[in-house]
Amino acid sequence: MPRFALLVFFCTLGLIVMAASIDEVPAIAGFSKNSARIQREWEQKFRAIPSTENMREYMKRLSARPHHVGSPYDKENADWILSRFKEWGLDAHIETFEVLFPAPQERGVELLEPTKFVAKLQEPRLPEDPTSGQYSEQLPTYNAYSIDGDVTAPLVYVNYGVPEDYEQLERLGVSAKGAIAIARYGKSWRGIKPKVAAEHGAVGCLIYSDPRDDGYFEGDVFPSGAWRPKDGVQRGSVMDMPTYPGDPLTPGVGATPGARRLDLKNVQTLTKIPVLPLSYGDAQPLLQALSGPVAPESWRGALPITYHLGPGPGKVHLKLKSNWDRKAIYDIIAKIPGSAYPNEWVIRGNHHDAWVNGAQDPISGLVALLEEARALGEISKAGWKPKRTIIYCAWDGEEPGLLGSTEWAEEHADELRQHGVAYINSDSNSRGYLSATGSHTLEKMINEVARDIQDPEKQISVWKRSQLLQIARAKEPEEREELRERADLRIGALGSGSDYTAFLDHLGIASLNLGYGGEAGGGIYHSIYDDFYWYSHFDDPDMLYGRALAQTAGTAVLRLADAELLPYDFAGLRDALRKYMSELEKLAHDQREEIRERNKEAEEGVFTATSDPKKTFVPPAPQDVPPYLNFAPLRNALDALERSVERFHKALATTQKDGGEVLARASLETVNQKLLLSERTLTRPEGLPGRPWFKHQVYAPGFYTGYGVKTIPAVREAIEQKQWKEADAAIVRVGKVLQDEAAVIDSAGAELERAIH
Amino acid sequence: MPRFALLVFFCTLGLIVMAASIDEVPAIAGFSKNSARIQREWEQKFRAIPSTENMREYMKRLSARPHHVGSPYDKENADWILSRFKEWGLDAHIETFEVLFPAPQERGVELLEPTKFVAKLQEPRLPEDPTSGQYSEQLPTYNAYSIDGDVTAPLVYVNYGVPEDYEQLERLGVSAKGAIAIARYGKSWRGIKPKVAAEHGAVGCLIYSDPRDDGYFEGDVFPSGAWRPKDGVQRGSVMDMPTYPGDPLTPGVGATPGARRLDLKNVQTLTKIPVLPLSYGDAQPLLQALSGPVAPESWRGALPITYHLGPGPGKVHLKLKSNWDRKAIYDIIAKIPGSAYPNEWVIRGNHHDAWVNGAQDPISGLVALLEEARALGEISKAGWKPKRTIIYCAWDGEEPGLLGSTEWAEEHADELRQHGVAYINSDSNSRGYLSATGSHTLEKMINEVARDIQDPEKQISVWKRSQLLQIARAKEPEEREELRERADLRIGALGSGSDYTAFLDHLGIASLNLGYGGEAGGGIYHSIYDDFYWYSHFDDPDMLYGRALAQTAGTAVLRLADAELLPYDFAGLRDALRKYMSELEKLAHDQREEIRERNKEAEEGVFTATSDPKKTFVPPAPQDVPPYLNFAPLRNALDALERSVERFHKALATTQKDGGEVLARASLETVNQKLLLSERTLTRPEGLPGRPWFKHQVYAPGFYTGYGVKTIPAVREAIEQKQWKEADAAIVRVGKVLQDEAAVIDSAGAELERAIH
Repeated sequence: MPRFALLVFFCTLGLIVMAASIDEVPAIAGFSKNSARIQREWEQKFRAIPSTENMREYMKRLSARPHHVGSPYDKENADWILSRFKEWGLDAHIETFEVLFPAPQERGVELLEPTKFVAKLQEPRLPEDPTSGQYSEQLPTYNAYSIDGDVTAPLVYVNYGVPEDYEQLERLGVSAKGAIAIARYGKSWRGIKPKVAAEHGAVGCLIYSDPRDDGYFEGDVFPSGAWRPKDGVQRGSVMDMPTYPGDPLTPGVGATPGARRLDLKNVQTLTKIPVLPLSYGDAQPLLQALSGPVAPESWRGALPITYHLGPGPGKVHLKLKSNWDRKAIYDIIAKIPGSAYPNEWVIRGNHHDAWVNGAQDPISGLVALLEEARALGEISKAGWKPKRTIIYCAWDGEEPGLLGSTEWAEEHADELRQHGVAYINSDSNSRGYLSATGSHTLEKMINEVARDIQDPEKQISVWKRSQLLQIARAKEPEEREELRERADLRIGALGSGSDYTAFLDHLGIASLNLGYGGEAGGGIYHSIYDDFYWYSHFDDPDMLYGRALAQTAGTAVLRLADAELLPYDFAGLRDALRKYMSELEKLAHDQREEIRERNKEAEEGVFTATSDPKKTFVPPAPQDVPPYLNFAPLRNALDALERSVERFHKALATTQKDGGEVLARASLETVNQKLLLSERTLTRPEGLPGRPWFKHQVYAPGFYTGYGVKTIPAVREAIEQKQWKEADAAIVRVGKVLQDEAAVIDSAGAELERAIH
Repeated sequence: MPRFALLVFFCTLGLIVMAASIDEVPAIAGFSKNSARIQREWEQKFRAIPSTENMREYMKRLSARPHHVGSPYDKENADWILSRFKEWGLDAHIETFEVLFPAPQERGVELLEPTKFVAKLQEPRLPEDPTSGQYSEQLPTYNAYSIDGDVTAPLVYVNYGVPEDYEQLERLGVSAKGAIAIARYGKSWRGIKPKVAAEHGAVGCLIYSDPRDDGYFEGDVFPSGAWRPKDGVQRGSVMDMPTYPGDPLTPGVGATPGARRLDLKNVQTLTKIPVLPLSYGDAQPLLQALSGPVAPESWRGALPITYHLGPGPGKVHLKLKSNWDRKAIYDIIAKIPGSAYPNEWVIRGNHHDAWVNGAQDPISGLVALLEEARALGEISKAGWKPKRTIIYCAWDGEEPGLLGSTEWAEEHADELRQHGVAYINSDSNSRGYLSATGSHTLEKMINEVARDIQDPEKQISVWKRSQLLQIARAKEPEEREELRERADLRIGALGSGSDYTAFLDHLGIASLNLGYGGEAGGGIYHSIYDDFYWYSHFDDPDMLYGRALAQTAGTAVLRLADAELLPYDFAGLRDALRKYMSELEKLAHDQREEIRERNKEAEEGVFTATSDPKKTFVPPAPQDVPPYLNFAPLRNALDALERSVERFHKALATTQKDGGEVLARASLETVNQKLLLSERTLTRPEGLPGRPWFKHQVYAPGFYTGYGVKTIPAVREAIEQKQWKEADAAIVRVGKVLQDEAAVIDSAGAELERAIH
């Protein structure tokens, strides 16, 4: 769209919004009618402020040089951000932690047999792209927190390297024992690949970007298109974050200079085998050196070769040696104190560190956060005062392992558990549709916000656009019916992969992750090509979705900060828990039926009859049919929750019928204090089985997915891993947690009832 | 398996089979108990005769040189086959027809813009492969029955080139009008691609083999593996066979020297635009010359490029000029006269012509047929006399357009309609599982045969192995239950693609197509590499499945020829018709719901909201919601059929309870004569709408699939093409046909009842 057309478009939009606001003021959860009217006025002022031109300038400046942990420009950026926050009137400071951050001193990948090939391990400068040649400041291509190693072994191709891939390898008579596993990026979080490879006896691991997943198969490659070129490499952390994220040396406590630190040899979250990432240019000769069975169809990528599994004859020498330095990281923390409830904190964050220049990851999200902070400063000057304290955070060290946010959350754990209302995160941002994931207590609030944000490309709200996309993608008529009939769009649950993790999973603070995307795509993730040139050519060149993100996240912050009653909605939570409950029962049922069927097929000779005598095939061993589990404790807890949610929402509805009189009579501080604890109640101090750092009992990243969420994880993972006793015990524990949750909601409801009668 | 082990294995099998036959003789449909015992003895003798060594020798000889229509070796092979039939004691002769068979004089494909590239259009000789260098006798790479042409136009990529691909192109704002369409082989029969391209205004068509479909994506390429090498080309006919197959000049009558012939300009079955096939070596530079939208994900092949749709900037010059010669074709026809019912004919065929050397296609099937004929000769010498006349046929001209079988069937149409009991076809054969498709009246018979054939790789029957494969592949528990509980495995219906077409679709003779496959795979189809070297290295090197095919097809012939009562089973037909009926109702329902939903989505703005403003997207136009159709005539006919099938099978069951006394009393000739007409009753003299040559009302190749079957085609294709009046009328017509069928079965049942009472 030409710039002029855009201008007209937005003026028209402004008129529409204004016209609507004169006619009637739609209700906002947590606000009485009167305060909703005032709130909407401030929000409109707020949303008019964020400037795409500013965001473009911030991005240019923040991504001008590589700014990873420990780099000079990382510190320069931190100081610059601090100055901005201060300039805009926020009470800002930098908090510094000292964390383990290894960087490689030696790296080598060489094919020794049957032919020779030395991997480049280097991304070339491109003449079009001005920042791509900043070699002296760039981190080399590597996977942080891989242990050192020097191994020579036959190569084996393991697809995405997740547990089911190894099951299939076993069926095909291929073992990774003693081999170097080469896995492709994708499907799971990258740290899962060396973890599972090591569990299967591999002595080293290579992770490469297949052109099927983010290279030429998807679209034209950089610089003529947005996708990964032949020598582009995805850096990234392979720390075992599903065990615990943050500084490996200081689990559970802030990595302050005086903190007690683990010895390196006692750290659980380093890999067990050496790992390096590869471009597809480097990977192709290695994969071509494999024979053995042809890879199953879904394992084959887009390289012009026949994908074989090996092991060998390709033999590879992999060498990696890192410094094991400690580096300072800089979190910038900026506050606007609450006028009514200073001890209730609304926290908003985005990281500022990158793997290299990181225009998309994370600067595209950070520039929105910065414009929000500026806009809050502006409306403060115009007289707005938030009821609650607002804290804006720019985290350092997200890339290596959520370091900045985790250390800050651990360091301030007690205060945060007492005061934390919500944490709103963002990270990379792009052109397209609003993605909102997080705590279901915030489902209604974020749906309301999304209805008030205009999509920059279409003359509809971002909520409407999301709804229509989901209708377009729905497979079953029932799904479409729900999308059309249900008041709110369901939000997905959070796994891991960005800075909300410590807030939600460790502290139990209701969290949301917000961002736009889905239209642009590309393959520069964690490479030197994620820079201003790429972003301004292929992603969100006009920063229109940067502004939409600032408007969305900022409006959410404003509502959380200003609501009389904290806008948690338990109907959303109840619906989500119902769904998870059904999923768990289905999982147990399907697993039982599958094992029964497989045993039957083994007995009737299916595996023998359908194996090709010219190929190796190892039939699956017969398995015990899983017992029925006792789901009653969870079902009963859900029933209790159902009743308390009904009581609370009935009372809540009454408070919203008048102009604010009932709320004025209520002891808001008491009710809010109860509500504040509702997400905390979903945690248990002892955490999840085998990973005590993860305390939330409804949401966690999967132990074998890394990013992907496992809801009601103690139960779900026990079933998946066929630990029946553990599953039964977890059902009892989670049932108790949900009973406690029911009690909290019930008592908040009772408190509201007192104001009504 | 080493040869010695095999020997032991088969001796053991022999003992098992013999042991079973002493204990008890399983019933055979159409045989009384006494005759079943005698029959089984002859069958065992028969099945012991086919020799893998002979088949290997036949294949070597028949595929030693290119033997396409009109080539010297085609005639030499015909004479050689004639001599063999005679040598084995069959009454054999050659029938000659004269058919249109164009071969190219000029071929050229050249990229003119934005770069220059001249396609090779030539498959190179390989030093390992002794017959690959017989250049002087090889047909060039071309698509037979393409019209001549000389066109220069921008290129457009159309995926598989089937109608739904053009719908998607329309959504993406891409038109093939005035362009040369490049389609990949696969999904539909190749002749559909230029037909649909021309319907959409394309001026030329290129068809290439993508490595995704039969090249390196699937496995190592020839000569190191079985799959298509870079320069391998699939030749093949593009005659519009769904309109009518056989000699284009003589539709409906035999192409004898004196036959009335159409003028070339009046022939309907030539393409409307020039067509040439390409290797992926030749296709890659052309595809790389396209820009425009990136192809949808499922359209992308395995070349190391980003697939774009175009049109252009790639501009192509396509030139093709053929001689339009008439050539003689040679069908070898060999008879064993029937001793009891010489006027009931069991026909068995396989073609002998190839595109080049054709070891797999068709020689692998033909050598089995030859060993069957030799074995029948042997047991004839030992005293066996078939009740019915058996006719063994080796067809010429199958590749260009089912020429030999069609012309013979048309020439002998009257006799065949009177005498034809069944036609058993085979074609290419390979290692793996029995595939049996055809008339459902033969479903029970072929199931019984399959239970008596031993799989050469596993110590189970080929029936059992197929059943277990289908269980392994079944997606739903209900499918598995049916596979486990139903007496017979369901057989698929026949579309087109081999020589059964004229017998089944034009004449209404119950037909079966038999072959083994599914284990070996490969990509030499219709190339110079389909030769003895390839077959003996990668397909069925020990000819074990060649022998299995001879045993299977031969046993079917023996049973059809010797049964007292023709072994048609109408329960199979009834079940198939029930299934088709449900499919048609579901098709109509789903189509209605889809259109309703799409209209609704258009109305609520789904298409506008979800289109990327940076990409062209043309939303689908609103469509009229299809009316409800009156399926009652079909449902009523099915009910009538149901009752008559019950009556017939009840009577039949009684005949099988005794030693043969009831059958002895029955007028078998009268019953058989009625049964003989049961498949003929499923035809209508006026044929299908728009294609009168296709007379069968239950089975036909799809007008837009070419190979793929459309069952109850008049109704199904009318619904698919949204011709509601035509659909309603077709339901009435097919209802009448099924009522007639019910009457025939009923009267056969009545005839049997007379013998019982």
